[in-house]
Amino acid sequence: MKIDVLSLFPQTISGPLHDSILGKALEKHLLEVSVTNFRDFSENKHHNVDDTPYGGGAGMLLQAQPIVDAVAYTQQQAQAEGLSAGRVILTDPAGKRFDEQAAADLAQADHLTFICGHYEGFDERVKAVVTDEYSIGDYVLTGGELPTLVMIDALSRLIPGVLGNDESAVDDSFSTGLLEAPQYTRPANFRGAEVPVVLMNGDHQKIADWRLKESLRKTYLHRPDLIDYQQLSPRAKELLAEVKIEEEQN
Amino acid sequence: MKIDVLSLFPQTISGPLHDSILGKALEKHLLEVSVTNFRDFSENKHHNVDDTPYGGGAGMLLQAQPIVDAVAYTQQQAQAEGLSAGRVILTDPAGKRFDEQAAADLAQADHLTFICGHYEGFDERVKAVVTDEYSIGDYVLTGGELPTLVMIDALSRLIPGVLGNDESAVDDSFSTGLLEAPQYTRPANFRGAEVPVVLMNGDHQKIADWRLKESLRKTYLHRPDLIDYQQLSPRAKELLAEVKIEEEQN
Repeated sequence: MKIDVLSLFPQTISGPLHDSILGKALEKHLLEVSVTNFRDFSENKHHNVDDTPYGGGAGMLLQAQPIVDAVAYTQQQAQAEGLSAGRVILTDPAGKRFDEQAAADLAQADHLTFICGHYEGFDERVKAVVTDEYSIGDYVLTGGELPTLVMIDALSRLIPGVLGNDESAVDDSFSTGLLEAPQYTRPANFRGAEVPVVLMNGDHQKIADWRLKESLRKTYLHRPDLIDYQQLSPRAKELLAEVKIEEEQN
Repeated sequence: MKIDVLSLFPQTISGPLHDSILGKALEKHLLEVSVTNFRDFSENKHHNVDDTPYGGGAGMLLQAQPIVDAVAYTQQQAQAEGLSAGRVILTDPAGKRFDEQAAADLAQADHLTFICGHYEGFDERVKAVVTDEYSIGDYVLTGGELPTLVMIDALSRLIPGVLGNDESAVDDSFSTGLLEAPQYTRPANFRGAEVPVVLMNGDHQKIADWRLKESLRKTYLHRPDLIDYQQLSPRAKELLAEVKIEEEQN
């Protein structure tokens, strides 16, 4: 997959990607991330990319021209490499909620272009070239770089071969539809806090049962909205019933 | 405010913060961010920080000891500087939903410690020293660095003086409870797409009215859950009624 990122802060994108687990995916060419500074596309002689808002108000807005032209360039380049023009993604508080399903959907693409906005906003006419607007959450950030990195991280780990161990992505919270059960590693007793005995006795059936039950418990207590009762196995339904009784007694 | 970040990838935290608008806040000492590699606290002679999970399964888990001891260290240091031990924040899918209100709440603190997890997870017993668990959204990431950066970015911009212009934070989406109206900057006609006339005629009352109406429209169409009818001004209620009629006719 090729990912183009349009940003005024190219190093903010490159650094974290190379430092993370995705660095290996970049080295193995499972993923190519190319960062373009859209300031280079400004037709303004001073290479300005922002201007004051029509109608007044605080701050500066990103102009449409440099971004629109940079998108056209990345799309032409991708097509010259035999890829599709691809989807063009903007982070916006009014966008669709970005979630694991959206990540899985984007992970199927051969080419994506992300536009990193600016904390003051951008000219609405940028949206003429945008195919998808996403919001990563209900909070305001100073720029589009961090949400773009979050989306790239979430979708890249779903590309086959990117994570060292293919099982890792399957078991995680949200991937199964439930929150993950508590996990423990050595020592068995850490300053008085002990690992649940069931995890140490080697009975794989009991361990699987405990993990499913604790996963259901965590989800029931913290994110009941994630439980799709229709999708639960008969055993999961039994365990969930037990959890509900136990939690009512607490 | 002092923020301690515990991470195995210190440069992933430092780079983006210095590159962004927050770099100025760091220079002006409105904010101090100190990154500690908790590997330095490992009591293991090879400085390992992870081990296999009890009960089996893929991947490695972060051990409790290096993280718990690193938290104790950052808290002692902060207290020696006259600050509070402060809140200790972990990103976890089971955590409370991080939102603008949570950012505003954390922005009041004098000291915060963020623990950056690892894509495979951590020993549950780390949570003994954690005061707040947050989820930035329903997606899985390869590490805790990006969600930590997202939270630091969101809360830091709410610290007085961090943004160049104090008005900027007040007008943004979520800060007013509504999504922001579309914005435009030069040119008035960009390749055939024109700026709404009302924004160019200098009538401030009409501009304010148009912005309020379009803000209500965007919120009504994309995030109706954000509209708190009780909180709307009488004029906003009138405009929302107009929006509903217009959108039904479309």
